Amino acid sequence: MKKPGTPFSISQGCTVSELAQKMGGTSFQARNLAHAVEIWSQMLEGDVTIFLGLAGAMVPAGMRQIMVYLIENRLIDCLVSTGANLFHDLHETLGRFHWQGSAQADDEELANSKTFRIYDVLTSEEEFDKTEQFVIDFSTKLELDRPYTTREFFFLLGNELSSQGNEEGILTAAAKANLPIYCPAPGDSVYGTALATAQVKLGNRLLFDVIKDVVEIVQIACSAPTTGVIFIGGGTPKNFIQQVELCGHLYDKALKGHEYAIQITTDSPQWGGLSGCTFEEARSWRKITPDAATVTVNCDATIALPIIVSALGERAAKVLQNRKKPSFTLGKELTIL
Amino acid sequence: MKKPGTPFSISQGCTVSELAQKMGGTSFQARNLAHAVEIWSQMLEGDVTIFLGLAGAMVPAGMRQIMVYLIENRLIDCLVSTGANLFHDLHETLGRFHWQGSAQADDEELANSKTFRIYDVLTSEEEFDKTEQFVIDFSTKLELDRPYTTREFFFLLGNELSSQGNEEGILTAAAKANLPIYCPAPGDSVYGTALATAQVKLGNRLLFDVIKDVVEIVQIACSAPTTGVIFIGGGTPKNFIQQVELCGHLYDKALKGHEYAIQITTDSPQWGGLSGCTFEEARSWRKITPDAATVTVNCDATIALPIIVSALGERAAKVLQNRKKPSFTLGKELTIL
Amino acid sequence: MKKPGTPFSISQGCTVSELAQKMGGTSFQARNLAHAVEIWSQMLEGDVTIFLGLAGAMVPAGMRQIMVYLIENRLIDCLVSTGANLFHDLHETLGRFHWQGSAQADDEELANSKTFRIYDVLTSEEEFDKTEQFVIDFSTKLELDRPYTTREFFFLLGNELSSQGNEEGILTAAAKANLPIYCPAPGDSVYGTALATAQVKLGNRLLFDVIKDVVEIVQIACSAPTTGVIFIGGGTPKNFIQQVELCGHLYDKALKGHEYAIQITTDSPQWGGLSGCTFEEARSWRKITPDAATVTVNCDATIALPIIVSALGERAAKVLQNRKKPSFTLGKELTIL
Amino acid sequence: MKKPGTPFSISQGCTVSELAQKMGGTSFQARNLAHAVEIWSQMLEGDVTIFLGLAGAMVPAGMRQIMVYLIENRLIDCLVSTGANLFHDLHETLGRFHWQGSAQADDEELANSKTFRIYDVLTSEEEFDKTEQFVIDFSTKLELDRPYTTREFFFLLGNELSSQGNEEGILTAAAKANLPIYCPAPGDSVYGTALATAQVKLGNRLLFDVIKDVVEIVQIACSAPTTGVIFIGGGTPKNFIQQVELCGHLYDKALKGHEYAIQITTDSPQWGGLSGCTFEEARSWRKITPDAATVTVNCDATIALPIIVSALGERAAKVLQNRKKPSFTLGKELTIL
Repeated sequence: MKKPGTPFSISQGCTVSELAQKMGGTSFQARNLAHAVEIWSQMLEGDVTIFLGLAGAMVPAGMRQIMVYLIENRLIDCLVSTGANLFHDLHETLGRFHWQGSAQADDEELANSKTFRIYDVLTSEEEFDKTEQFVIDFSTKLELDRPYTTREFFFLLGNELSSQGNEEGILTAAAKANLPIYCPAPGDSVYGTALATAQVKLGNRLLFDVIKDVVEIVQIACSAPTTGVIFIGGGTPKNFIQQVELCGHLYDKALKGHEYAIQITTDSPQWGGLSGCTFEEARSWRKITPDAATVTVNCDATIALPIIVSALGERAAKVLQNRKKPSFTLGKELTIL
Repeated sequence: MKKPGTPFSISQGCTVSELAQKMGGTSFQARNLAHAVEIWSQMLEGDVTIFLGLAGAMVPAGMRQIMVYLIENRLIDCLVSTGANLFHDLHETLGRFHWQGSAQADDEELANSKTFRIYDVLTSEEEFDKTEQFVIDFSTKLELDRPYTTREFFFLLGNELSSQGNEEGILTAAAKANLPIYCPAPGDSVYGTALATAQVKLGNRLLFDVIKDVVEIVQIACSAPTTGVIFIGGGTPKNFIQQVELCGHLYDKALKGHEYAIQITTDSPQWGGLSGCTFEEARSWRKITPDAATVTVNCDATIALPIIVSALGERAAKVLQNRKKPSFTLGKELTIL
Repeated sequence: MKKPGTPFSISQGCTVSELAQKMGGTSFQARNLAHAVEIWSQMLEGDVTIFLGLAGAMVPAGMRQIMVYLIENRLIDCLVSTGANLFHDLHETLGRFHWQGSAQADDEELANSKTFRIYDVLTSEEEFDKTEQFVIDFSTKLELDRPYTTREFFFLLGNELSSQGNEEGILTAAAKANLPIYCPAPGDSVYGTALATAQVKLGNRLLFDVIKDVVEIVQIACSAPTTGVIFIGGGTPKNFIQQVELCGHLYDKALKGHEYAIQITTDSPQWGGLSGCTFEEARSWRKITPDAATVTVNCDATIALPIIVSALGERAAKVLQNRKKPSFTLGKELTIL
Repeated sequence: MKKPGTPFSISQGCTVSELAQKMGGTSFQARNLAHAVEIWSQMLEGDVTIFLGLAGAMVPAGMRQIMVYLIENRLIDCLVSTGANLFHDLHETLGRFHWQGSAQADDEELANSKTFRIYDVLTSEEEFDKTEQFVIDFSTKLELDRPYTTREFFFLLGNELSSQGNEEGILTAAAKANLPIYCPAPGDSVYGTALATAQVKLGNRLLFDVIKDVVEIVQIACSAPTTGVIFIGGGTPKNFIQQVELCGHLYDKALKGHEYAIQITTDSPQWGGLSGCTFEEARSWRKITPDAATVTVNCDATIALPIIVSALGERAAKVLQNRKKPSFTLGKELTIL
């Protein structure tokens, strides 16, 4: 018992950075939230390649511009996402909206008015169809005689969107920043249904090389002096990033686990799944090093993420300017510069 | 679909009030958090008597000064609490600490070093014993020939602490502000074990009239033009405040339900308990009016409460000055002025 | 790695006892469920006084006859309950019902038809009022010049109900079995509102000595060679039973913690509250002995409890017959024979 | 209020089918569990093609033989799974084990002894490596000049395992039963790391056509008179099966939503993700028909699944014999007979 807690005291004009700092004096999940800011700051100060796993309907929930901020200011170096978030990003990049609704809506009525619900967010079926059609059209511009990594696909899509002068989003910002995006389950989203339509109706069989995705992300990890991970939710992105550390043999390198790890989750360990598992469990697999700086923030990411990134933005301005960034070219092959 | 979401955008020097406002443009629990600030603001602007139910180890977790702020600035009018929080408040008021520990501590080792753990908070058994002894000593100063409401007991205790010049805490601030505190289960906490010791070892049988507590809080509700509730966690405080609305007949008044309701909870409705139940369910009981402004924030209170109260403090300064406060004298009987 | 898991295999006519046994070969919460059966069995075989804490709307959810079974067959020795469960038990004992409804009901409509909802259970306001009136009437038969422990109150109520020839329930079975029931927050339930009505409208001030409740339960623990605990949910019952182990000094006995502990909970440790805390944490307080047999079953009690008790009933028949039971007389004073 | 609840009563020799039936008289999640048995029974009686989505570490947790039972007795018609469960199945099929451990294990010690932990299950790194090598070896037997659906890959793997005379498991039983298995994220599992090794070290670039997976499963749904879904956990399997209903246009058929739906989940709606979302929400998307029979069982699947399937096995024996099964040939192309 070395350090007494410091009760949170209310002060006028408190900034979010100060909020996070004051939370560091408290306990339970508020302290974990403050700790997450500290660990992310440490990653930014070190020579660390940062992977972010993004699951959950974060774009519909309003987290898209935070992701753009993370990419543009290089607070992360590689993004692994569910297909849905990347589709929802495309939807907004094309100028369409996610609408504020209610979790107590009458779903039969919504169905009749062709409105889709995502908890308390609404989307228009008609507008969704237009964005799906955009994906179909885009796919016809790609080569059919060779497979694409999901990384290349989303890079090309980001470039295409930028060239058309659309609103800035995750895909466009990542393409500009040469920041790779991986999507372990591209078929499980409207990208999947759009490309299935292209395959059946247009005979346009676009192939993803999802195994090469694995190869590439291992390559990135093997080329980094140190790695850190940030998980927003669990799902395929979390495991896809975690399993990298078991694959050093691909490039004859002894990967020993990520050295920094943050997860923001509403899942719990007792159900046994990978999404809710602790970083302690991850240590048994050596996905995380024994002495890694780790924290789990048990909180809805729509609350935790704005706080953490606002606090980082305030504190890390100087650090960010000097940050040594991993550089990639994102052509057919990923090349690490 | 009238209102599109506004993705959260990172800005420099963002204050907590701005944070909450920006969260209002997003969805999921961040929007609910923003909504809680709005509803509490509405309560402060109206002629509303505000009950706050406090459960969970909020004082050890660092929320004590926030409670003091709420009392001193009259953001609440009546507090219902578990005994534990009121004991932990006493502990800190007497100059002792809750210490920062780790949820992964070795508990056998802690037991051997006489250290108690509350998740990631530590307390010293020896120091706890001193605070328990303080309660025993205090109880010997009370009359034995009549029962006390818990409200009177904690009012007298707050006064006693103030008169001894201790640090300001919940009990002292509430006594000064004539703000009533109720504790539905006084035996279930160190107050209970201390007073049991007094009863067995000193023959000092202090009696609580826990039914008169019910009578008094109904009296408060019946004297209020409008009522609002804020629940930090569930437990006995939540139900104790909710059941008030079923008791208007005590004073021949037709109570129709609280008109404003906020709950911050990590529990869920699907388990069927009162702690996690929705305000929709409460409407069937008429504990909440049909058109009440209500919101549930599914979030650890150590995160939600600092944000909500910081935002309120920033926004509500003016409102607070003009707020018409319910006035009570807290003697043997509660008198509403 | 000594023992491989045994995958659960489907077999015809599998009994619940076999179900639990087969779950012991699996993992996650199924294994914990099986483990709970084992620990409870050990308690029954040993010379153990068993405390059961009951929280959550277990009687409305259909768990009342299981509680009766536990009492009649002496699978538990002392019950600590929320007031609500004891009121709901009274309600059914008087021949009234809890009805099957839906969690998606229209609550405004329910309110208009004077129907209360508890998740997917419905109750009639009119019938509730009758049961509340029964409590008021019963209270007028008690002495006003002295306080009652909640234990004595519920014993007398159980006797009264039996003498009127009502259906067998928790209160009646416990009174017949001389099994003590404690209720740490009697004001927080319809008992509280009924007795408040009696106090205001009839001038009938019934007093509970909730501190003597603490004294008595400590007395029970101090007279037991060994103690075990079973928590259905958390709330005041859990802590009320746990804190007993800190009170051995009342009877100059060194209590060292309960030696068996089972909890069935849907809460989680990360929120820091006592309801969801682990038995590891409890060890730091010495509420649980270092080598206690403990298990947490993370499961809705409506699923876990029927399985555990059905399996126990099947296996423990023999053990139960020979079980040495603690004996009490439950008069004004609790006397341990 | 038409139907009173029937409290659960303990009876000797109660079978699991009787357990489930008695739970139908109770409330909260026990009633939902009973309801799941009813809905699954209805599916088996009707002309329904049943999709099961499997997420979470269900095979390590001991659910593998239940899956085999479901396949062999045709209680399901199509399986969508995470890669991990299919790898863990392979591991056991090759005669290796998942071991019973503890969730409180020392993970650094485990790491040093090359033991991986999955909550309270342990696996040997060395043995895992052998199973991974088996995948690498198997991949060298496949053609490199054309892509495989994951369905074809796992069908061929199941056949290979059978031909080698291995223990019966999910992959082998499915291959024998001509039951298609889809895996939306094959790269996210040891299959992914094994095939990445084959690609880098052996130059053996196996291609998955994950979009054709989408096409095929839509084809199955379009050929079925009626469809039903069962979700064990969420993740990619849940959405992958749900999105099928938005794709009827691929085969010019108006799919209107699944007509039966069961989910067993420990997730909650309030976090906004697809894994925890309600079937009400799914109705707004028309993934579920307005009048579908649906139930969500909020329970660890290791508890719920053994009960549901044991009860079904007992009740449905007759129904199963007469069940009209969808028939497929699972060659290069999926052909519906």
